[in-house]
Amino acid sequence: MKKVVVIGGGTGNFTVLRGMKLHQVELSAIVSMADDGGSSGVLRDELGVLPPGDVRQCLVALSESGRLMRSLMNYRFENGCLHGHSVGNIFLSALEKVTGSFETAVEEVGKILNIKGKVIPVTTNKVRLHLVLENKKVLLGESEILLYKNSLVGFNSIYLEPFPKANPRAIEAIMNADVIIFGPGGIYTSLIPNLLVEGVSKALRETEAKKIFVVNLMNKKIQTPGFKVSNYLNEVKRFIGKDIFDHIIVNNGIPPKKLMSNYADESELIENDLMDDSRVVTANLLEEEVPQYNKNDVIAHTRALIRHDARKLADELMKIVDNV
Amino acid sequence: MKKVVVIGGGTGNFTVLRGMKLHQVELSAIVSMADDGGSSGVLRDELGVLPPGDVRQCLVALSESGRLMRSLMNYRFENGCLHGHSVGNIFLSALEKVTGSFETAVEEVGKILNIKGKVIPVTTNKVRLHLVLENKKVLLGESEILLYKNSLVGFNSIYLEPFPKANPRAIEAIMNADVIIFGPGGIYTSLIPNLLVEGVSKALRETEAKKIFVVNLMNKKIQTPGFKVSNYLNEVKRFIGKDIFDHIIVNNGIPPKKLMSNYADESELIENDLMDDSRVVTANLLEEEVPQYNKNDVIAHTRALIRHDARKLADELMKIVDNV
Repeated sequence: MKKVVVIGGGTGNFTVLRGMKLHQVELSAIVSMADDGGSSGVLRDELGVLPPGDVRQCLVALSESGRLMRSLMNYRFENGCLHGHSVGNIFLSALEKVTGSFETAVEEVGKILNIKGKVIPVTTNKVRLHLVLENKKVLLGESEILLYKNSLVGFNSIYLEPFPKANPRAIEAIMNADVIIFGPGGIYTSLIPNLLVEGVSKALRETEAKKIFVVNLMNKKIQTPGFKVSNYLNEVKRFIGKDIFDHIIVNNGIPPKKLMSNYADESELIENDLMDDSRVVTANLLEEEVPQYNKNDVIAHTRALIRHDARKLADELMKIVDNV
Repeated sequence: MKKVVVIGGGTGNFTVLRGMKLHQVELSAIVSMADDGGSSGVLRDELGVLPPGDVRQCLVALSESGRLMRSLMNYRFENGCLHGHSVGNIFLSALEKVTGSFETAVEEVGKILNIKGKVIPVTTNKVRLHLVLENKKVLLGESEILLYKNSLVGFNSIYLEPFPKANPRAIEAIMNADVIIFGPGGIYTSLIPNLLVEGVSKALRETEAKKIFVVNLMNKKIQTPGFKVSNYLNEVKRFIGKDIFDHIIVNNGIPPKKLMSNYADESELIENDLMDDSRVVTANLLEEEVPQYNKNDVIAHTRALIRHDARKLADELMKIVDNV
């Protein structure tokens, strides 16, 4: 079976994994550990644990348990002190406390959820994402970046503190992969945080795996206003140190007007300015069903209503995987 | 295999089940649902769920999973908003929310914990324990009763509100049992609340099962000052309506002075005044290891330091079970 490694964080990873799970491949998910919003943020602050949210999403995506266990892990309490916490997050944090190791916690929940594949935190150091704006203002953490109301364009620097060592299992997975899928996901909040971990970019430059970049569907006007496909590619290249991608997957579907109007000034479709680049594959990758967000999801307005369809995306990815 | 039904709540049930699990019997635990202290109380109040604490203890006692899963379920958070909640309680409450049924929640956690036997809430109505004192003051709930500083002796009445219907599975288990084990446990807070559920006392009077009463080790000075074995028996008889017990198991071990001095004025050993009753079996049933309570356990001082040894107690119980 082909070894496929998915790199990202958040909902992007979830979508890729959920689709790829339907195919005969050996999956590993490398997950950004910079999440500090919502339930994950509270658990980090109050319990001193690693952020469980993105890992939980990957575990649920790879789960072959029944619907009940998957719903349970994603269930968020709606009242009282537990408000906003998902059961999976609480479970991972408690297991980290009991075992003293986040990785053991991930492994154990993986067993309970009967996952197909592996979920690998990119680092097990406790890191905080810092983004320094041109005016020297520092945005601390994924949540401040997501909620910031002014432009990030031309920001000064972005880094994790303390400078983290990569999880050796993440490096090993990258080096042994047949195919690496990078993205989709928030470029500064989910994708690049993986590249800020010592050793990850180097491994991506050196691995012989075929590398696929799955470009996002929409720009976030604050973060990436007017970005085209080439801008995304260049931004990622800055951190990897090289244009490593063999394939670039770009959506060409047009979402219904009704959905677009929900975004109002917030976002815009990403224009494909690489029509002539032979690496670019275009397809309609849009999910047709509109996602419903839980009213307790405090950063729901930062999440996408227009999303990749897990099956369509996986079908495109498999055309590449099958030819490797 | 002999069908053995254990009736109680709290740590008493836990001890009996943990010991009996080591033997070849078909176990069912019928659990009081009047708990409203600590984590269970908060979850009841904030989420409107049934109290998970006593059920969780039974599930853990019957679990054949590894030590990690059992530790996890009993793990209590020590900081922040989750402070004092055990993972098992949170898990049961979330499952009740997701499935809409506490019994389904218990069943699902039973699967995850790979339990040997059944755990049956005595009722699935949301009840609150009321104890009316002679001066008409009402103590509301297990927690107020446990924390009350004056004597309960001669209290006026004790009841559950609303008057609950029994879980049909509890009645069925009682009627089909070969042996029923009643106690040990807090007489007003864990044992009698089972008898206050419509149909339970009647089933206990009518079942052909052999009935064993496991008498507590110590009196609580507030609740049962100077109670002897006969007082316990009579108190339970008032609620069942008949002296139903075929066997009465009484400890005759003497705890080390050091432990007794911890209790100071709080408690005293229960005197066996039924030496001539042929139903009484005496044995040294004391646990030799002193239990360590978590500092976050807000009602730790109400919990016993002098406890039944699960193996010794089960060995005595099995002598009876084997002869049925």
